[in-house]
Amino acid sequence: MTEPIILYFDLISPYAYLAWKTANRLAERSGRRVHPVPVLFAAMLDHYGHKGPAEIPPKRLYTFRHVSRLAAAEGLRVQPPPSHPFNPLLGLRLASLPLGPERREPLIHALFDAVWGGGGGVETPEAVRAALRATGEDAEALTARAVAPENKARLREQTEAAIAFGAFGVPTYVVEKEVFWGYDSQEHLLGYLRGQDAVDREDHARWAHLRPSAVRPGS
Amino acid sequence: MTEPIILYFDLISPYAYLAWKTANRLAERSGRRVHPVPVLFAAMLDHYGHKGPAEIPPKRLYTFRHVSRLAAAEGLRVQPPPSHPFNPLLGLRLASLPLGPERREPLIHALFDAVWGGGGGVETPEAVRAALRATGEDAEALTARAVAPENKARLREQTEAAIAFGAFGVPTYVVEKEVFWGYDSQEHLLGYLRGQDAVDREDHARWAHLRPSAVRPGS
Repeated sequence: MTEPIILYFDLISPYAYLAWKTANRLAERSGRRVHPVPVLFAAMLDHYGHKGPAEIPPKRLYTFRHVSRLAAAEGLRVQPPPSHPFNPLLGLRLASLPLGPERREPLIHALFDAVWGGGGGVETPEAVRAALRATGEDAEALTARAVAPENKARLREQTEAAIAFGAFGVPTYVVEKEVFWGYDSQEHLLGYLRGQDAVDREDHARWAHLRPSAVRPGS
Repeated sequence: MTEPIILYFDLISPYAYLAWKTANRLAERSGRRVHPVPVLFAAMLDHYGHKGPAEIPPKRLYTFRHVSRLAAAEGLRVQPPPSHPFNPLLGLRLASLPLGPERREPLIHALFDAVWGGGGGVETPEAVRAALRATGEDAEALTARAVAPENKARLREQTEAAIAFGAFGVPTYVVEKEVFWGYDSQEHLLGYLRGQDAVDREDHARWAHLRPSAVRPGS
């Protein structure tokens, strides 16, 4: 049984949208299942005291241009959601439900398309219900399960597990404990699985033990 | 007279090293001169209240793996400097001297190789002098010019100009006022110059005016 590639994602990230929309190709090319795992990006930022791209005005603007160009190269299009940033919790909790891939994957497609595919977003329970309509799921029943304490805990645990693996952003792929950050790290991941990783062990060990000779004041 | 591509860089960044090492190819492919401009990345981080990759432990480790993989794809190798982060000011001030490309570019190569090409770094005046030896420049005379008030001001002004253009990191390319962030944005830059930019103007305008419906507590 080959280990799957874990894909940590948050609906808030357009790069995660591209990672999800290209997950089937990655599965084909790697010969592995891609297992999508929702995490709360904001909790990662809180953990590291970091800012997301949307929190730095010129980076926020650049991000959309950048992701539009990446999408076009895939024959995809990324469209702005109704608002951003938005609260992704209900969507992430729904996407975390233990439903099995045959139900959970269409759910994730529906939620992601609602956000970045020109849909009505997921920032309110009404918007989420509208997003779920195409899946044939019972939105009321799923939402009730999504907000149950054990499912809220599941999303928290997934986020903590991603951080424990060394993830600091989304999307993050993890395979055989190796972390690959970003939609555009797929070629590096495939090279790693083929045994063609270019990281020099000695160089990396030196880097890992390097000491700073200067620290930014206030950092 | 075709406008050059401005390449904003800091010696602290291994991605900027790759951008500089591939600048000749970018010049050939674009038919434009690449004009390297030193900036202080730490001042950009201060400006935006942001953290650099070296300031988030798992991102710091990942960055070296990532940049090693990018370098290998170019037939290049990135090696850890003697210390990191280090104070890049003297190196950046030297690289900012108005010497003309025929003297300034070999200087930048020498400084960057001292940091990421297996050399002795640039964190002390002695290390900088050693780095300059191969260039045939008079290190004492250049250093005296580098630390003169008007040259210190030059580096500050360059950094402020980069921020005013919308740069938030290094390397950043600017051409015809369009900003491209990161070594790996070269294909997007070339597409833009060919008139094949994939950014949808209406989508981008909507994104630019989007309102948040949720804000991260404490952000």
